[in-house]
Amino acid sequence: MAKRKQLDDFRVPFFNGGKADKGFSFADFDPRAKPFSTGAKQADRERLIAYAAQLDEMQERLHAQRRERVLLVLQGMDTAGKDGTIRAVFHEVDPLGLRIATFRAPTLTETAHDFLWRVHQQAPAAGELTIFNRSHYEDVLVPRVRGELRADEIERRYAHIRHFEALLADSGTAILKCFLHISKDEQRERLQARIDDATKHWKFDLADIDARHQWDDYQAAYVDALAATSTEHAPWYVIPADSKSHRNLMVAALLLRLFESLKLQYPPAKESLQGITIS
Amino acid sequence: MAKRKQLDDFRVPFFNGGKADKGFSFADFDPRAKPFSTGAKQADRERLIAYAAQLDEMQERLHAQRRERVLLVLQGMDTAGKDGTIRAVFHEVDPLGLRIATFRAPTLTETAHDFLWRVHQQAPAAGELTIFNRSHYEDVLVPRVRGELRADEIERRYAHIRHFEALLADSGTAILKCFLHISKDEQRERLQARIDDATKHWKFDLADIDARHQWDDYQAAYVDALAATSTEHAPWYVIPADSKSHRNLMVAALLLRLFESLKLQYPPAKESLQGITIS
Repeated sequence: MAKRKQLDDFRVPFFNGGKADKGFSFADFDPRAKPFSTGAKQADRERLIAYAAQLDEMQERLHAQRRERVLLVLQGMDTAGKDGTIRAVFHEVDPLGLRIATFRAPTLTETAHDFLWRVHQQAPAAGELTIFNRSHYEDVLVPRVRGELRADEIERRYAHIRHFEALLADSGTAILKCFLHISKDEQRERLQARIDDATKHWKFDLADIDARHQWDDYQAAYVDALAATSTEHAPWYVIPADSKSHRNLMVAALLLRLFESLKLQYPPAKESLQGITIS
Repeated sequence: MAKRKQLDDFRVPFFNGGKADKGFSFADFDPRAKPFSTGAKQADRERLIAYAAQLDEMQERLHAQRRERVLLVLQGMDTAGKDGTIRAVFHEVDPLGLRIATFRAPTLTETAHDFLWRVHQQAPAAGELTIFNRSHYEDVLVPRVRGELRADEIERRYAHIRHFEALLADSGTAILKCFLHISKDEQRERLQARIDDATKHWKFDLADIDARHQWDDYQAAYVDALAATSTEHAPWYVIPADSKSHRNLMVAALLLRLFESLKLQYPPAKESLQGITIS
């Protein structure tokens, strides 16, 4: 009988100087797998609701304590489900405690600075849960595939990313990075569905098809980027994401585990308020 | 038989140069009233869910069109329910399409600028629904009650606010401003409940009690500020808010009506995508 899969079986091995981590590849991760699904649709839905309620409570403690910060980074190919994950997993979380930073193609002002400048501004503050919908990882993936940066420049960016994330972690930010892993077949179906439904055209850009033509280049760029930046304080996880319900459950489970590790408590009662009667 | 109340019966008369608008006072608005409640708790809950689903759809169209902007300003005394409204009304709205800007006491950097500087930075972008949880109105209310600004300085700030909001409106921002109107009795109960529950102490500051001692001053400051800044493009509404379910329903109904007035449509299908088959 196969061993039951653990969340950490999907963690990208930690970077150790670029030597032993050459073994990581997507071949070991089937995008169609559903290891954290219950196997039944209705049960999956109920479990996600339960997870979301727990996330909501954890987030309130985070907010009350106003000390720790939590950062979730979501990356994936087009249609991998970044928006859908945010919608499904965080539907029940108090909107007051959640901030979503969406990174599109950089503006002129942004490209006039180093590539981490605009990202740093969006880092979570004390008590905040922030989601990066795309992130600074676009700035190693896209220029590499387009051949706009030399290999050594890309390597330097990986190092800058590791140092930047170490700074955030060192200042009390718990970081979780999820790569939403879909198959090329699944992407074809999702893109086609968007084309066939005219009301979805606003979500679609012809450039999305160009990126699909470079599928293998992007997969290779992701493998290298993940291997170079998965660290103990900012680990990458590969999320099998052809199944949306599985994807949602797995991201929620990872985030819940991270929250639990913070052992968040409500701040203690204030002595100055004891026995006061409001008139 | 009394005439059925309309939403616009709760609109603060538009500013007309400070002459005829002296008639506005809170005496005409009973904070305990529930004019937009169904009268039954379960039916209220179902109606709010229906409103929230409509808001969710409207917000998606706003996002798809990426042209209009929507701004909701929430103000009210401590415990009036600003956080609670956001939580209840926007629970079902896609977190991707919603941004909440919470204004606390200004930082040193912020006070080194004019009072609208930090507010302008948080104005909604094209396609965004933004909620101001407190706002630039704190900067006319607080200094007035504390006696930190002369009357003519306060009047100048009202004028700056009118011009600022006209700029936003002129750039495609639909604005709704809601004053959550609670009674002094209701506030006593809510403050006392926070004191009696030690896990809620983090929400409580002894300064909240000071503000309560200046209840009448704050009410007078609100009346003047609302009268001086209710305009056709940025109207103020008084929301009877002793009943939380009524408060939620009324804010949702006003916002829905505003969204409907925008006649948002999904962008048209793209000809460039017709007949494409993804390989």
